[in-house]
Amino acid sequence: MTATRIDGTAIARRIRERLRAQIEKEQETNPRFKPAFTIIQELGTYVRMKLKAAEEANIICNLVHYPKSTTELQLLEHITSANNDPSVHGVLVQLPVPDHISEHAITSAVADEKDVDGFGVANIGELAKRRGRPLFVPCTPKGVMALLQESGVDLVGKHAVVVGRSDIVGSPVSHLLRNADATVTVCHRRTEGLENFIKHADVVVVAIGQPNYVKGEWLKPGAVVIDVGTNYIPDESKKSGQRLVGDVDFDSAIEVASQITPVPGGVGPMTVAMLLQNVVDSATYYFERERAQKNHNG
Amino acid sequence: MTATRIDGTAIARRIRERLRAQIEKEQETNPRFKPAFTIIQELGTYVRMKLKAAEEANIICNLVHYPKSTTELQLLEHITSANNDPSVHGVLVQLPVPDHISEHAITSAVADEKDVDGFGVANIGELAKRRGRPLFVPCTPKGVMALLQESGVDLVGKHAVVVGRSDIVGSPVSHLLRNADATVTVCHRRTEGLENFIKHADVVVVAIGQPNYVKGEWLKPGAVVIDVGTNYIPDESKKSGQRLVGDVDFDSAIEVASQITPVPGGVGPMTVAMLLQNVVDSATYYFERERAQKNHNG
Repeated sequence: MTATRIDGTAIARRIRERLRAQIEKEQETNPRFKPAFTIIQELGTYVRMKLKAAEEANIICNLVHYPKSTTELQLLEHITSANNDPSVHGVLVQLPVPDHISEHAITSAVADEKDVDGFGVANIGELAKRRGRPLFVPCTPKGVMALLQESGVDLVGKHAVVVGRSDIVGSPVSHLLRNADATVTVCHRRTEGLENFIKHADVVVVAIGQPNYVKGEWLKPGAVVIDVGTNYIPDESKKSGQRLVGDVDFDSAIEVASQITPVPGGVGPMTVAMLLQNVVDSATYYFERERAQKNHNG
Repeated sequence: MTATRIDGTAIARRIRERLRAQIEKEQETNPRFKPAFTIIQELGTYVRMKLKAAEEANIICNLVHYPKSTTELQLLEHITSANNDPSVHGVLVQLPVPDHISEHAITSAVADEKDVDGFGVANIGELAKRRGRPLFVPCTPKGVMALLQESGVDLVGKHAVVVGRSDIVGSPVSHLLRNADATVTVCHRRTEGLENFIKHADVVVVAIGQPNYVKGEWLKPGAVVIDVGTNYIPDESKKSGQRLVGDVDFDSAIEVASQITPVPGGVGPMTVAMLLQNVVDSATYYFERERAQKNHNG
């Protein structure tokens, strides 16, 4: 049996089309509904994928560039300015920031109601709770869950093994899977007998940054595999001299799994789609608050 | 083989004595060092254990009582008043609050730097992170970890199964175990094959509120068992007509485990000891901030 490929590229495209339609529909009754977000990034870095995806969904993406020599205060001023701009619904600071700047200070400075990355402590805290109410779920974990849902994977009571415990992927994915009623095991570099945990998993999510690490023969036949890894390995047959691979050895895993995400074309495009989803949600919340306030005052 | 009982009562007593000595030592150089906390509770509820333990550790415990008919605003005023009182280092609102009051509004109102219960969203968020910096860890989860540590249990790479996923115990315990480098599985009422997970666990933490639910024959021989349950079951041989038991069937489990906490006398006394620890830590932070400010100004 060969596994079905979960086509993240196609699912992400459908989501962008849905968002575009949603925006158009909102604009019929509220012409001011123009979802927008601001990316604050170092001069010389590029975010082509995000820009292209935003354009396709009809979402405005502002870019703010700062020089490597910027001070923490200057960077905070960029964030405050975006926080205070009512036409901006999401604020994203590209990480990493230069070494002399505190990442913690920066991510904490983004207003909770514009934290479309979902990494602020308020969002993380709500996400960690059993019945928490995060305003925004971090994009990659949200994308993993959307892929599982779109692929019709039943999670209730199933054993999900998450390999990797990072704040960006592993830990938030484990909270989301728990909230979806899966039994969740989080494995990591100190885990003894990783293969044995994977052998018993109905769903495996891998986010460790190790090229082709998880082998097909470790999997339980019929498992669903979500590969979050993005590793570049040398490949002389490519013009660039390198090739993008995941954390899962795709060729052997596809022979054992029932469904599997490829790399590229799996989780990657979903991360961007979920960011756009968060921006549109944020714009929706904004106008809901505005209406609530008007009703309250008038 | 019969398991060693982990004596929470004795460990908690040692912690109270250590705190008392720590306070005395601090007072030698800073006579204003008088750790204090305020418990805000409904009229007619009692907190004898906390009062007695605080007294033993030489920590001041203020009680604020409100009638069942209180308004949310009045309750918030009690919290604000304790938040603003520099001689109070911890603020604790006994849960549950009356039905007509929002628990979320109440727990969010406690100042982060006095949230000795550790349930505010800032503390929960920091706790959920891999390298987060919570000011205070919730008392029962912190007590569970202290019992494991005091009993010399090595957690690195070991498989820990947490049964129960509540915000108060299961979830924060799972984060603490992960941060201690255990491989953690969180099981709950929707888990299929609970016995099978427990069978493979080196450490089992149970917090489900089901009397004597986990049986000795489910355990892996030599497992360490921490029982967070506090269930009252009918017992005609007792004057009160009832008896306190845990979530683990102690009599069968003690024959299989290597170490096990009894109920009562296991986790219970540790919860109160950790609360006192958090209050003393909070007082310490307070004077550190005061010193830092003085140095800054002068």
